[in-house]
Amino acid sequence: MTLYNYFRSSASYRVRIALALKGLSYEYIPVHLTRGGGEQFNAAYRELNADALTPTFVGEEGQLLTQSLAIVEYLDETYRDPPLLPASAVDRAYVRSLALQVACEMHPLNNLRVLAYLKQTLEVSDEQKSAWYRYWIDLGFSSLEKKLSSDKRTGLFCFGDTPTIGDLCLVPQVFNAQRMLVPLDSYPTIVRIASHALTLDAFKKAEPAAQIDAA
Amino acid sequence: MTLYNYFRSSASYRVRIALALKGLSYEYIPVHLTRGGGEQFNAAYRELNADALTPTFVGEEGQLLTQSLAIVEYLDETYRDPPLLPASAVDRAYVRSLALQVACEMHPLNNLRVLAYLKQTLEVSDEQKSAWYRYWIDLGFSSLEKKLSSDKRTGLFCFGDTPTIGDLCLVPQVFNAQRMLVPLDSYPTIVRIASHALTLDAFKKAEPAAQIDAA
Repeated sequence: MTLYNYFRSSASYRVRIALALKGLSYEYIPVHLTRGGGEQFNAAYRELNADALTPTFVGEEGQLLTQSLAIVEYLDETYRDPPLLPASAVDRAYVRSLALQVACEMHPLNNLRVLAYLKQTLEVSDEQKSAWYRYWIDLGFSSLEKKLSSDKRTGLFCFGDTPTIGDLCLVPQVFNAQRMLVPLDSYPTIVRIASHALTLDAFKKAEPAAQIDAA
Repeated sequence: MTLYNYFRSSASYRVRIALALKGLSYEYIPVHLTRGGGEQFNAAYRELNADALTPTFVGEEGQLLTQSLAIVEYLDETYRDPPLLPASAVDRAYVRSLALQVACEMHPLNNLRVLAYLKQTLEVSDEQKSAWYRYWIDLGFSSLEKKLSSDKRTGLFCFGDTPTIGDLCLVPQVFNAQRMLVPLDSYPTIVRIASHALTLDAFKKAEPAAQIDAA
């Protein structure tokens, strides 16, 4: 198995956590998202990933997969232990909704190409760019905190006491927020879950700083 | 079953297609996203949906679900006929990646609250706002067209000759693009699939213009 990815890419980080939790080994091929204008735009990489996004996953039989949550669901269906989704359809929908809240409502607004558009095309100031970043983090984390702090299914992790795809999305998003110096005092449940997750070897192994391409 | 939704909301439209394909009847409760500053911000609605987004789905036993793709996966797991995902894990991942490409890379950048932030906070011009809209549509549709026009799994629909969650995301995104007058001449496969889908009763029934809250 091969993962084309970037140490600091949030979507790559999600897949690394899943691979580590499943105990799967893989070849790590770095795709530097900023060096030389971005290696994701190289023709060779775009043959693998027309979107010029990371990660790209290549499975044991050469299956080429893109989109982090599609890759994670594939890993969960193919390598079942430990499961990354609960057993009942309703609980699965709840956990998926937590993951999608990060993946659809927060991360897309703050990824590299969006920030580049704001800066280069709309010519916003650095202050406006930071305010934009914080705005979407705060909007998303406020409602996630509300859910996680009130739902009885919350445990050591987003759902119960073992990691699910909710945590796979939450932890990289907390990493991003911290890197951008967004204050997280208003989100104690989120911070508690992310801190707990990072006590596990699988989450530690997937952290940006532990990757071969870490700056 | 109840669906709180808005006729023109792309995420609502996805769920309506799934419900129609499964032949499920439901109560339609309109949540007007612009009237009176947006009914999604009303306290009563936020009790159901902390994110103040549509749709919100309430199942037969009162299960409260949010996030369109989580709801669609729930419906597919609970009401299996017809299936909205292929049988093999690799094909499922491929179809999910098509859906996520719309749901994570295109739609989040062009939804109402993002356009409102651009206009009100960043004070961009109407021209800049339209250019932003077109930019993310073109970026997403370009790579989707490349995939769909070259992948052997493409049929009358995104995957084979029956609808999947890929089509559930694609058709509302095409509707959005057309409404915003984005030229689609460069995306013949996408246009062909969306046009074919709209010959089916289930897709017609889910169309914005067919809803009780249509303007």
